[in-house]
Amino acid sequence: MNEALQKAKLAKKAASGLAQLSTDVKDKALGMMAQALEEQAGYLMKANKLDVEAAVQSGKAKAFIDRLTLTEKRIKDMADGLRVIQNLQDPVGETVAMWKRPNGLRIGQRRVPLGVIGIIYESRPNVTADAAGLCLKAGNAVILRGGSEAIQSNKAIVKVLSQAAYEAGIPEGAIQLIEDTGRDSARQLMRLNGLVDVLIPRGGPSLIKAVIEEATVPVIETGVGNCHVYVDSECDQDMAVNITVNAKISRPAVCNAAETLLVDRKIAEEFLPVVVKELQENGVEVRGCAETLEIVPGVVPAAEEDWDTEYLDYIMAVKVVDGIDEAIEHIEKHGTGHSEAIVTNNYFKAQRFLDEIDAAAVFVNASTRFTDGFEFGFGAEIGISTQKLHARGPMGLKELTTIKYVIQGDGQIRK
Amino acid sequence: MNEALQKAKLAKKAASGLAQLSTDVKDKALGMMAQALEEQAGYLMKANKLDVEAAVQSGKAKAFIDRLTLTEKRIKDMADGLRVIQNLQDPVGETVAMWKRPNGLRIGQRRVPLGVIGIIYESRPNVTADAAGLCLKAGNAVILRGGSEAIQSNKAIVKVLSQAAYEAGIPEGAIQLIEDTGRDSARQLMRLNGLVDVLIPRGGPSLIKAVIEEATVPVIETGVGNCHVYVDSECDQDMAVNITVNAKISRPAVCNAAETLLVDRKIAEEFLPVVVKELQENGVEVRGCAETLEIVPGVVPAAEEDWDTEYLDYIMAVKVVDGIDEAIEHIEKHGTGHSEAIVTNNYFKAQRFLDEIDAAAVFVNASTRFTDGFEFGFGAEIGISTQKLHARGPMGLKELTTIKYVIQGDGQIRK
Repeated sequence: MNEALQKAKLAKKAASGLAQLSTDVKDKALGMMAQALEEQAGYLMKANKLDVEAAVQSGKAKAFIDRLTLTEKRIKDMADGLRVIQNLQDPVGETVAMWKRPNGLRIGQRRVPLGVIGIIYESRPNVTADAAGLCLKAGNAVILRGGSEAIQSNKAIVKVLSQAAYEAGIPEGAIQLIEDTGRDSARQLMRLNGLVDVLIPRGGPSLIKAVIEEATVPVIETGVGNCHVYVDSECDQDMAVNITVNAKISRPAVCNAAETLLVDRKIAEEFLPVVVKELQENGVEVRGCAETLEIVPGVVPAAEEDWDTEYLDYIMAVKVVDGIDEAIEHIEKHGTGHSEAIVTNNYFKAQRFLDEIDAAAVFVNASTRFTDGFEFGFGAEIGISTQKLHARGPMGLKELTTIKYVIQGDGQIRK
Repeated sequence: MNEALQKAKLAKKAASGLAQLSTDVKDKALGMMAQALEEQAGYLMKANKLDVEAAVQSGKAKAFIDRLTLTEKRIKDMADGLRVIQNLQDPVGETVAMWKRPNGLRIGQRRVPLGVIGIIYESRPNVTADAAGLCLKAGNAVILRGGSEAIQSNKAIVKVLSQAAYEAGIPEGAIQLIEDTGRDSARQLMRLNGLVDVLIPRGGPSLIKAVIEEATVPVIETGVGNCHVYVDSECDQDMAVNITVNAKISRPAVCNAAETLLVDRKIAEEFLPVVVKELQENGVEVRGCAETLEIVPGVVPAAEEDWDTEYLDYIMAVKVVDGIDEAIEHIEKHGTGHSEAIVTNNYFKAQRFLDEIDAAAVFVNASTRFTDGFEFGFGAEIGISTQKLHARGPMGLKELTTIKYVIQGDGQIRK
């Protein structure tokens, strides 16, 4: 029996127990897991050092090594993350709706855990603690499958977390790591229908694409965001500059950062010089359409592929459009259904943008950067879904549950 | 460009328009579609005759030919089905929830159509009208891909329905049929990520398995039901007989029919002779475990595979169990997560069964046959989901929608 199958069987068994656990036990476990991370920081950093050394030897980029490295501070942050989850409301057991049928049957929708969740992710070891905590709080068993670059760190983190959890009364098998980081182990995990209820890939577009291509288990697609800010002719231009700059530079490497600015032709001559200057002063390379270049000479010319590129960097494409019609059309063609914003004072244009843009999050007069479980008030986030099934947009604890119908009768039979 | 790709592109375009349509236009279209079916009954039956003749020639079973055949009555039923959908509440546009964040952002969840839905199904032509109506009411474009045995009927039905719909103002491309019934056309449809938002297979286990194996587009798994009735020692035995017989024979060929009866050992000697006699008098072949055979001689012995078989027929497996513990264990091992029932007077056992059984629908003192969109009060049904993602149990109009976040600000940027 391969590792994925063996661990999935254990996870499924654990999931039955987990679904019945009281919130008290789960919260106690989360507290003990947080404490264990802090207490065993030395052990974790020692394991992490092996990963970091290997990364240095194989010539990984500085940014990569930075993301991989565990420090006392980062371990404390992971522990605090678990304490935040500990304090969130338990979604399990809620009666979402209940009604009585003419024949007397009482039909209720009860919120229950999904069961077994597989998380396939790349090299950030903090995802390990985060995902384990969220899955546990929502009553799910989790099978983690991280990248080879963080394997020593992940093994240590999962060892510490699972020991603490099991001591607190969580069923064995609730938190497991696939230690084989070869491609086959991931593929095996992706095809365990009947044992694994859902896969959530977290990482770059190629990881996500591979999971969608190969999985037979249901997948929640996360993350790719080619987000736009459209600045309408009727708007507060200072607000438009603020929102554009914030959407681009407050954290360029994340999926809710804006990549393209669309500007209504009517105000292009007035607005573009201001916004381009502000972007450039903040270190952003601006790539403009032909009209932009005419208005602001010295801007890099945008190529056709710029409209489809998620830079995740200090680069922004800028295009002059013929009002809201062309803006909506451009977003429909090039957007990835993540987050889209309009800046306008006009009531009808605001409503139209909200109605017609088909994306997980549509903003009026606010930065796209708010698409985030914490900013939405969920208290935590396991990822941002860009698909339409099950969950769309930021996924918190509720999105890690499903419902079951609970039907109470007094002898009803069907005619 | 292959047929699936071409039609999916048109469908996606239609979906943008459909999402913005008023309920009035959709309802008018549904009314006109119903009327067109009735008015063109002669044309439909003529097309259907070609399918029926081909089926007869290729030696199909009588039941198959019966399901395939369109009569005036069946066409009237299809039309009435569309009128029922016309009178249901439009799920699109509902604000599911809305809240205000400390920074003043108003975050709303708005119910919107899924987009483009692919339905892959077998030989019942009534599915064509039914699925087209439900998808349209929920604002979705639909791509139908029926079996080769019903292709002439499906072509005629889709022609009549789409013409009526487009006349009523529905965008062209909203209702389409893939006319190529080869395996490749289905496979192409299953891999149109970015154009098709969800696939719903409707048919037997092998069809559903093939879709799950081959699709990269998200799938909603429907249908397989190995359902149980557990009769507890503390129960009204007359009620238990009624529920068991109803769950088995009221319509044996459907997924919510019960396949296995589990009886608490404490009442087996008293209860089994009564229920077996009643089942047999209703034409059911009873297959019993060793203990059942001792109590009711003459029953067919059950083999191990009987516990895993969805008979969809006048056959029922019967097993004596050691109370609710063994009943839950047996269902966990052999059930397919569809519908499970307990008959008991005991409050604690009822609660425990509801808590611990992991299925789409869990019943206390009622027949499993109630797992159905109409019986649940949804007014219609596109299928019964046995997966946990997106929808679980009967799927009505709401399950054909998703949400988008609609965020209204006054200049908020993220710190």
